[in-house]
Amino acid sequence: MSSVLAAAAAASPVLATMPPRQRAEALVAAADALLAAADELVPLAMEETGLAEPRLRGEIKRTAVQLKLFADVAAAGEFLGVRLDAADPDFVLGPRPDLRRYLVPLGPVLNFAAGNFPFAFSVAGGDTASALAAGCPVVVKAHPGHPRLSDRTAQIVSAALPPGALGVIHGQEEGVAALRDERIAAASFTGSLAGGRALAEIAAARPHPIPFYGELGSLNPVVVTPDALAERASAIAQGFAASVSGSAGQLCTKPGLLFVPVEFAAAEAFEGVAPHPLLHPGIVDGYTRRRAEILETPGVTVAVEGAVTDDGVTPTLVETDLATLLKHRDTLLQEAFGPLSAVVRYTPGESLGAALTELVEGSLTAGVHIGAGEDSPWLRELVAALQALSGRVLFNGWPTGVAVTPAMQHGGPFPAATNPTTTSVGTAAITRFLRPVVYQDCPQSLLPEPLRDDNPWNVPQHRSPAGESSTWGSLAA
Amino acid sequence: MSSVLAAAAAASPVLATMPPRQRAEALVAAADALLAAADELVPLAMEETGLAEPRLRGEIKRTAVQLKLFADVAAAGEFLGVRLDAADPDFVLGPRPDLRRYLVPLGPVLNFAAGNFPFAFSVAGGDTASALAAGCPVVVKAHPGHPRLSDRTAQIVSAALPPGALGVIHGQEEGVAALRDERIAAASFTGSLAGGRALAEIAAARPHPIPFYGELGSLNPVVVTPDALAERASAIAQGFAASVSGSAGQLCTKPGLLFVPVEFAAAEAFEGVAPHPLLHPGIVDGYTRRRAEILETPGVTVAVEGAVTDDGVTPTLVETDLATLLKHRDTLLQEAFGPLSAVVRYTPGESLGAALTELVEGSLTAGVHIGAGEDSPWLRELVAALQALSGRVLFNGWPTGVAVTPAMQHGGPFPAATNPTTTSVGTAAITRFLRPVVYQDCPQSLLPEPLRDDNPWNVPQHRSPAGESSTWGSLAA
Repeated sequence: MSSVLAAAAAASPVLATMPPRQRAEALVAAADALLAAADELVPLAMEETGLAEPRLRGEIKRTAVQLKLFADVAAAGEFLGVRLDAADPDFVLGPRPDLRRYLVPLGPVLNFAAGNFPFAFSVAGGDTASALAAGCPVVVKAHPGHPRLSDRTAQIVSAALPPGALGVIHGQEEGVAALRDERIAAASFTGSLAGGRALAEIAAARPHPIPFYGELGSLNPVVVTPDALAERASAIAQGFAASVSGSAGQLCTKPGLLFVPVEFAAAEAFEGVAPHPLLHPGIVDGYTRRRAEILETPGVTVAVEGAVTDDGVTPTLVETDLATLLKHRDTLLQEAFGPLSAVVRYTPGESLGAALTELVEGSLTAGVHIGAGEDSPWLRELVAALQALSGRVLFNGWPTGVAVTPAMQHGGPFPAATNPTTTSVGTAAITRFLRPVVYQDCPQSLLPEPLRDDNPWNVPQHRSPAGESSTWGSLAA
Repeated sequence: MSSVLAAAAAASPVLATMPPRQRAEALVAAADALLAAADELVPLAMEETGLAEPRLRGEIKRTAVQLKLFADVAAAGEFLGVRLDAADPDFVLGPRPDLRRYLVPLGPVLNFAAGNFPFAFSVAGGDTASALAAGCPVVVKAHPGHPRLSDRTAQIVSAALPPGALGVIHGQEEGVAALRDERIAAASFTGSLAGGRALAEIAAARPHPIPFYGELGSLNPVVVTPDALAERASAIAQGFAASVSGSAGQLCTKPGLLFVPVEFAAAEAFEGVAPHPLLHPGIVDGYTRRRAEILETPGVTVAVEGAVTDDGVTPTLVETDLATLLKHRDTLLQEAFGPLSAVVRYTPGESLGAALTELVEGSLTAGVHIGAGEDSPWLRELVAALQALSGRVLFNGWPTGVAVTPAMQHGGPFPAATNPTTTSVGTAAITRFLRPVVYQDCPQSLLPEPLRDDNPWNVPQHRSPAGESSTWGSLAA
């Protein structure tokens, strides 16, 4: 571990002072190296994770596109957040200095990789791409579910990057030691509530606490309105079954609760789903235990029993109602990581928004299926509640499948994320690894490139001229 | 306390859904109410804090300007961070939904007010202004140093705001209870390292942890180069003395360390500084203890002895060298809150940047006085070190006096701030109290106003049209 951290620390000033376009070129080269190795890496991922080939081929492509998307973000330079305030001798509060602000990389980032996306949330995944684009070296604590894939991916990808920019360590002990190491300046995590919370507390208890960005899972409630159900019950059942079953439900956006206004025959849609292996024995144990707890809860009935066998799992669907959720919230309102979901009956007309606010903790997503042109005070109250509890509010769709775009938000109130003000997917994720620094009255020759008037890196500079520095007055009485 | 929190919780949806221009008008009204009450509030502040009238008149004006500046920020709407990604059926990774992202207020903010700025960092100060502008109600935990001023300020200012938008509570116990209350969604703090750290840990240990923004103080090192000293030793000594002595050194940006290359006769500049009362008995005790510790440290000599008397304090100046700082870092490299500073001798040509990196923890500011046109590898290494350890790097000036502008950064690596990615002064402070939410495939009629195509609030909307959603390809090989 020590050599990986030392290499990251040495790479830190190199990456930080590299012009953004050069950083972008390195990210593109890394993406191309990853794609070129797909025929080697995908079989290795299949072997270690049990995930299917088409899913993994799609995921490696997504991972490469994500690296290139962050290359674009780096090259565009807007992420530097350059603000230039001209000196203003006539400022209302007295003469104002020349102030030039930009965002600088925090330093080496420790990324605790996830098990369920061996490419997209692992060694060369989103957290790594956004940290590298920000100019931070990355130390990945490999997920134990795919150690060989992690090492091989790092070898391939890091060859395209400056020395020390990307390294891998293994094991919980090493991960915790690295999190406590003063050379690490920030950490990211995708995984369980218990694990993420424990790591967040370690980060906060350091002599010098560091930013910690954990994505800890989510229930992802989806509501079906009476109108939607009247219009397209069968399509909704099909979509629901596909979203719950895909990748054996091992997705942080799996819909864990489906709220329906009347009896809803979804069971049929789950028929014929083939057994799918779970990622590793730890997931099998956790899922088996959670599934048993839920099935044994009074007030819960089984719609689709499913199974956990040596061949893999088939989905389990249960049915219950709001009163039972409230009564057994400790059992029913925690994530079950795997292909299990609950259909929950609500009474049309009663305030479902208030019930969700009371019942459901912070969630990555919250969705609603509505009828064509549907609108009502009841629905508006519901949508407001969905916004209050989540980071993504979706309509007539399913939460699994997260687009990597400028507007995407993947995060939400705790426990969806340890920090609700950021995202772990989409280009805005880069902000997690930057901090602002302002230069006051600095001679041009000593300014960092992005702050200079001659703008050698040609990055966007947002200027507040002296004449406009008192615009506050425009609103003054 | 309970009624204040209940009122804040009730105000939360009101403020959140208020159009930004209406929110701005309320902030302007609050600023005007504050200014109109200056003749009542300034004498009350003088009585409770011992600060001088001109300083307090300036501060109340600054506080009002700050409220209006945040009114402008609210009205401009850019803070909403609206990003609209058009649906893209041809996206390289498969069809992409319509995604519309903006920033929403976190909810009620608890603001632990500072003692040293009874207006600008207190009830109606920067944290309050930025939280209100973001759409968050504010509960201020009043500083015990000015309880009556706090209550009266809240009465005057809150009359201009929606009911419940601003309330005050008193006492450490109430403050901690509020910090643990589930109705509080974020907290800000300006004060001591020990106090801020303890509160940060309480915020992190809640069943639902919340963002905590603490500004915990700082050493604010300033370096004088040989060239600068040769050019203008006397002016530097005068500026240094004024910056250390102003407001009796009770400023988080007071320069606590001045690095000089040769003997530097600063003592004369401190002569004739009149005694100034400290803010409250707690500060007197802390300052007296810290001053004694420093004066008793081997290797430290007294240049200006100063005094702590019933009439107030006069500044104390000590001299030492780098080796002594390193040997006694626990004593000498912690903030002494009050009019005390240390002149530290360094050897010209030796790496001062490396020494500062080794010695000085995260600081709000770091400065250097240079000669006209001065430039050298030594200086560039020093500037890089100043950036690495601080949030504001200043040239040929003094850190006290913080302009409130778009580019200002007031924060830095721990312990300057608990979160280095944000600022507590300047318009960027608003981001602390917002979180992103994205709407996916939402019908126009159900979208929040800032996300609608007809843009009824007329806020800036940043669009990624479908055609441009694959710009990553532009860098692809």
